[in-house]
Amino acid sequence: MKPSLPGAGSMEGDPITELCTPAMVVDVDTVRRNAQRMIDRCQELGVQLRPHMKTHKTLECGDIMTGGTRRCVVVSTLAEASFYADHGFDDILYAYPLPFDKLESCAALSERLSLFQVLVDHPEALKLLSQRPLSAGRPWHVWLKLDCGNGRAGVLHSEPEALLLAQAIAKTEGVELTGVYAHCGNTYHCKGVDQIQAVAQETTTLTLQFMEKLRAVGINCKSSIGSTPSCSHPIKDMGQLSEVHPGNYVFYDVQQSLIGSCRMEDVAVRVLTRVIGHCPHRNQLLVDCGWAALSQDGGGKLPSGYAVIEGHPDLKLLSMTQEHGRVEPITGELDYRKHPLGSLLTLVPHHSCATAMMHSVYHIHSGGRLVGKWFPTRGW
Amino acid sequence: MKPSLPGAGSMEGDPITELCTPAMVVDVDTVRRNAQRMIDRCQELGVQLRPHMKTHKTLECGDIMTGGTRRCVVVSTLAEASFYADHGFDDILYAYPLPFDKLESCAALSERLSLFQVLVDHPEALKLLSQRPLSAGRPWHVWLKLDCGNGRAGVLHSEPEALLLAQAIAKTEGVELTGVYAHCGNTYHCKGVDQIQAVAQETTTLTLQFMEKLRAVGINCKSSIGSTPSCSHPIKDMGQLSEVHPGNYVFYDVQQSLIGSCRMEDVAVRVLTRVIGHCPHRNQLLVDCGWAALSQDGGGKLPSGYAVIEGHPDLKLLSMTQEHGRVEPITGELDYRKHPLGSLLTLVPHHSCATAMMHSVYHIHSGGRLVGKWFPTRGW
Repeated sequence: MKPSLPGAGSMEGDPITELCTPAMVVDVDTVRRNAQRMIDRCQELGVQLRPHMKTHKTLECGDIMTGGTRRCVVVSTLAEASFYADHGFDDILYAYPLPFDKLESCAALSERLSLFQVLVDHPEALKLLSQRPLSAGRPWHVWLKLDCGNGRAGVLHSEPEALLLAQAIAKTEGVELTGVYAHCGNTYHCKGVDQIQAVAQETTTLTLQFMEKLRAVGINCKSSIGSTPSCSHPIKDMGQLSEVHPGNYVFYDVQQSLIGSCRMEDVAVRVLTRVIGHCPHRNQLLVDCGWAALSQDGGGKLPSGYAVIEGHPDLKLLSMTQEHGRVEPITGELDYRKHPLGSLLTLVPHHSCATAMMHSVYHIHSGGRLVGKWFPTRGW
Repeated sequence: MKPSLPGAGSMEGDPITELCTPAMVVDVDTVRRNAQRMIDRCQELGVQLRPHMKTHKTLECGDIMTGGTRRCVVVSTLAEASFYADHGFDDILYAYPLPFDKLESCAALSERLSLFQVLVDHPEALKLLSQRPLSAGRPWHVWLKLDCGNGRAGVLHSEPEALLLAQAIAKTEGVELTGVYAHCGNTYHCKGVDQIQAVAQETTTLTLQFMEKLRAVGINCKSSIGSTPSCSHPIKDMGQLSEVHPGNYVFYDVQQSLIGSCRMEDVAVRVLTRVIGHCPHRNQLLVDCGWAALSQDGGGKLPSGYAVIEGHPDLKLLSMTQEHGRVEPITGELDYRKHPLGSLLTLVPHHSCATAMMHSVYHIHSGGRLVGKWFPTRGW
């Protein structure tokens, strides 16, 4: 008899089909391959890879992405920064507009690590840093966030304020201008390699032009751009940058395959779900995966709905409530004999970052056999 | 100087405005009022309240909803069932189609608690139960899931199979038919009390008719329907049922106020967020709440986008990425002087169940002062 805790019954060596569902599974071989490809690609390009931890938020995947160095990473939350710092990671860039409520926490990390780096895109944030000098004469390591067309955070590359802010950072006592950081999240609107590379070229060119302007006023610092699509198909000029900072590539997902960043066989994550109901009067199956296990990312707009159902191109995950999913055939009648109650379906998520957020444990497998569990950090 | 862990700086007695953001805050006075109203309403109606734990998944809120008895609750996952059982709750109904992979865990809970109850909507599930007799001659306590028009789980009330399955449960050795359970989640498509009550009436009538059919073949058992809209505006006939099982009412949300279940002042949860960017070139603010803190529930289709921004009916949460939200005025130009960097905005979530899922701690306040933290269970 198995123990009573859910999921506790499956052990290392068991096939993933033994897991209680819903369960997020990660193919560690695909993760390693994706990570190594990015490492190799950056080496060929001659640019430093600073992998983003926000997709997985685990130590194990951080190890794989850094090639075991635990150095040179980027994070999206202070919780990630603290988690990685607590476990021997260093050279951490907290790539988020300096949060005014977390200044003291950032100061503590700056004073504790060899190299903790923050992001600034407004003079008021610089003022806060200058008012909170670090101990022992340490400088704040600051990246200027530049918006090169992404339309989220950052000072616009085309505005005179961008150069003025860079100069202000460079000359402020107790603060060092470490680099210029641009995120090309606008590659997420692309279809295909040509479009991705056009956005990558534009972001790179604008960033390099800005670096020229800095040099013209006597400022030398690093530069970094990133996004999984652009770094999966880098353009030659990205070799002139100091760093790149993609993250999602370690898992990839359906969205990335549609953008053109990867092939479906590069996607490392799945959500396993079981059939819990037959509804012939609606020509539907019920499965035990709702938005609590998959997230509502993508809004169900794939031809196959909220996910791709592996091995069943004829099926669609039509809708979800908290713990239920409704599956129906894209055309025709369901053959219920193929999907007995309790049988498994395998969902490839639209967005692996959003799906991973819904799970407090990832079940790791190699060739379909469980090899361990990874526990992500959460919160802010 | 505050400690370095995020959120660790705020203590009981502090105003919620001291919290690091994003943060989910719960007004405990509103929670108590919502809970007491439902207790009173059910007493007046003469029906047993079996509150659903799935919205909050915390012990503290379970205490409030059960009036401190820790008895007679319903849960949506086995993780919730185990969590509540581990903390002295009993008379737990696991209202989910019997998951074939969790049979042994259900057996263990049935053997350990005074009253653990499962849900069945298919003869194959009944067969599994009969093949796994409980120890010491205990019966499996089984509710038959009936679909009275909700269109999710359950055997259709109109199909002969429904009565046949009820009879089969009643006569199977080692299994007891405890009740008939119908969820009227179709009230979520309603606008206004009249529509809610029409669905409640239909579900109640169909359930009571089914109970008549059962009595006609010599079967007596309990009946239960539920959903927050129907139980917020119950119809008289619901007094003829044994139980009702709403859950969301303890928090409520924007969706419930639009359905007509509650007023906006009954909504107990908020997500606090801070302004992290001014983007005058786009007439937008950036805030530190993305879908990692709010969920994408509702798809941004409210006039105010993904949430209601309290005190700012002129603002819209237009879009979110993982950790960023874009806010813009519904019409006209943003007045940035009203929203300095670091200032707070208060988001009323579209769906509190979905938002609560994104938080591993809820910050509890009374009158805007912190009084504690609640930690929900997660997983399956």
